[in-house]
Amino acid sequence: MSAATSNFVRRIPEGEDRERLTCADCGFIAYENPKIVAGSVVAHDGRVLLCRRAIEPRRGFWTIPAGYMELDETVEEAARREAREEACADIAIEGMLAVYSIARIGQVQVMFRAHLATPGFAAGEESLEVRLFAWEDIPWSELAFPSVHWVLRHWREAGAGPLGAPRGNPPEDPRGTGRLLQGA
Amino acid sequence: MSAATSNFVRRIPEGEDRERLTCADCGFIAYENPKIVAGSVVAHDGRVLLCRRAIEPRRGFWTIPAGYMELDETVEEAARREAREEACADIAIEGMLAVYSIARIGQVQVMFRAHLATPGFAAGEESLEVRLFAWEDIPWSELAFPSVHWVLRHWREAGAGPLGAPRGNPPEDPRGTGRLLQGA
Repeated sequence: MSAATSNFVRRIPEGEDRERLTCADCGFIAYENPKIVAGSVVAHDGRVLLCRRAIEPRRGFWTIPAGYMELDETVEEAARREAREEACADIAIEGMLAVYSIARIGQVQVMFRAHLATPGFAAGEESLEVRLFAWEDIPWSELAFPSVHWVLRHWREAGAGPLGAPRGNPPEDPRGTGRLLQGA
Repeated sequence: MSAATSNFVRRIPEGEDRERLTCADCGFIAYENPKIVAGSVVAHDGRVLLCRRAIEPRRGFWTIPAGYMELDETVEEAARREAREEACADIAIEGMLAVYSIARIGQVQVMFRAHLATPGFAAGEESLEVRLFAWEDIPWSELAFPSVHWVLRHWREAGAGPLGAPRGNPPEDPRGTGRLLQGA
């Protein structure tokens, strides 16, 4: 395989109303749609499972187990896979806690409330370490992304009761256009 | 632009664990992630707005206003845009009615409950006609996709009260692998 010499340009394909990333050589259109991030607030004995990221963006910062949904899985399966990959954790999903739109980076984040189905966990390949934090010990200033703040706050507000309607973006950032880096 | 001569192959990129669609010439990786479909059950005077599709797949069959979410919008904005494009309808979203995973075709469908914010509607470019149907007049045998059946049934079950937790795939198809064609 040669080094990258791709020749993609932005142009409006025939019959469409907006620019698409198109290969000027072969006409291939790489449709760019928002990506789904599936994640979970995973509790155990009242504490919350967080992973310290081993990869960019935001290497060294803490996040919940979450990542891009793949083809051939449901949103719940994606959330369980991410917990397995990032925290070697086997989780049981309780329900949908929140759905956030992060328009600036083209993400929809579907966040579940979950608990450890079996007590073990460990750092997966994309994590430097994985720990359970009591609420008062959460490293707020070292969280990786704004939506990690959002979802932890929403998890706390929801308590242990029925989840009801999923929470959305907080009023201060209704479209997910905040300046701080988001990622998965 | 020349005719399509793209040279995409499926191979496992370095550092990854699954095959990706990769251009054999330039190395460009076209990540294929699930796409988000945003749609709404739009009510007016107790009747439901349906659109008869002017495009494939399932041309001539009835569906709710729904379609692929684009970049730079929230899920709610996408649902409102689709209602505008397909039914020339200005809708007010009441809440999230359902989230379906259609694993077989890589879709997550986020369905809202909505009503007409202003009384007018008309067939948009992708619709042959748009009509309000009383529940007993819904053309069940002419609905375009299984998830249109699901969401209408879920809308009916929800009634007019608080929506609570979003509904998911029905028990008979928990992963969205049904044989019938799905689409947006």
